[in-house]
Amino acid sequence: MSASGLTYFEDYAPGMTRDCGSVSVDQAEIISFARQFDPQPFHVDPVAAADGPFGGLIASGWHTAGLVMRLIVDNYVSPESSLGSVGLDELRWPNPVRPGDTLRVHVTVLEARRSQSKPDRGILRTLIQAENQDGEPVMRATSINFIRVRPAPGGEHGGEGE
Amino acid sequence: MSASGLTYFEDYAPGMTRDCGSVSVDQAEIISFARQFDPQPFHVDPVAAADGPFGGLIASGWHTAGLVMRLIVDNYVSPESSLGSVGLDELRWPNPVRPGDTLRVHVTVLEARRSQSKPDRGILRTLIQAENQDGEPVMRATSINFIRVRPAPGGEHGGEGE
Repeated sequence: MSASGLTYFEDYAPGMTRDCGSVSVDQAEIISFARQFDPQPFHVDPVAAADGPFGGLIASGWHTAGLVMRLIVDNYVSPESSLGSVGLDELRWPNPVRPGDTLRVHVTVLEARRSQSKPDRGILRTLIQAENQDGEPVMRATSINFIRVRPAPGGEHGGEGE
Repeated sequence: MSASGLTYFEDYAPGMTRDCGSVSVDQAEIISFARQFDPQPFHVDPVAAADGPFGGLIASGWHTAGLVMRLIVDNYVSPESSLGSVGLDELRWPNPVRPGDTLRVHVTVLEARRSQSKPDRGILRTLIQAENQDGEPVMRATSINFIRVRPAPGGEHGGEGE
């Protein structure tokens, strides 16, 4: 069982929410991430950013997504039963993330249904919400994930990879 | 002017496409990224991944997104005129990205309209498509970005940050 008490598809039900904890955002990490993946001035250059559209350095939305994902992997979709993600709908970054911010992540199960074509798994639709220390939303998305069903005692539903 | 010849909102028109070039995906980078942001076994552990649902190590979708973003920043939305992104719709990872893959990125302008509330900018909706060396799609999304309009000769439309 994972630390969250959530492991297999059967452990998830629509309406269930989870606090996935929080993470602090460091200026050096913002710059390092953005130099590699998203080198826009307001992500990599504090001086240019101060005169830029956000009045200061902000994290790449992809960096925010990575930080949020880490909390979700550690607290929601168990690595031992995850079968990956199709993608996300309506990914939004409604407010900037700035150095020193602390982000808190909540998830809510929107839908949980068995796969029709692959009996070893279920499909979860999950609302992801992250907010900063002032309660302002900084990321929102609906994630679509595959997750293993609980193996039968005889191991019949172990599927590939068990 | 940016390297792409695209700088301000006026340079973008619906239907326009751009080849944003390609990037190779390295196993060590896949593992390094995933250890930080997405430590699921099929992203961080080649041995466990070989017996896992994808029959081998695959990149985190967030890593793929970062690699794709870098090509877009370098070849499409000019850093000098970008005013950030609201987010993306229908982000999908239809096929896994594996070590040694080479991803090629194309973008297509779906919509370009002036902001009603903020005269210094336009709003671009852009279809992002990435495929691997075998022509298989590995990422698709619609991005929503703000971008500066071309400054008037007198600098009237410079807006904040100019």
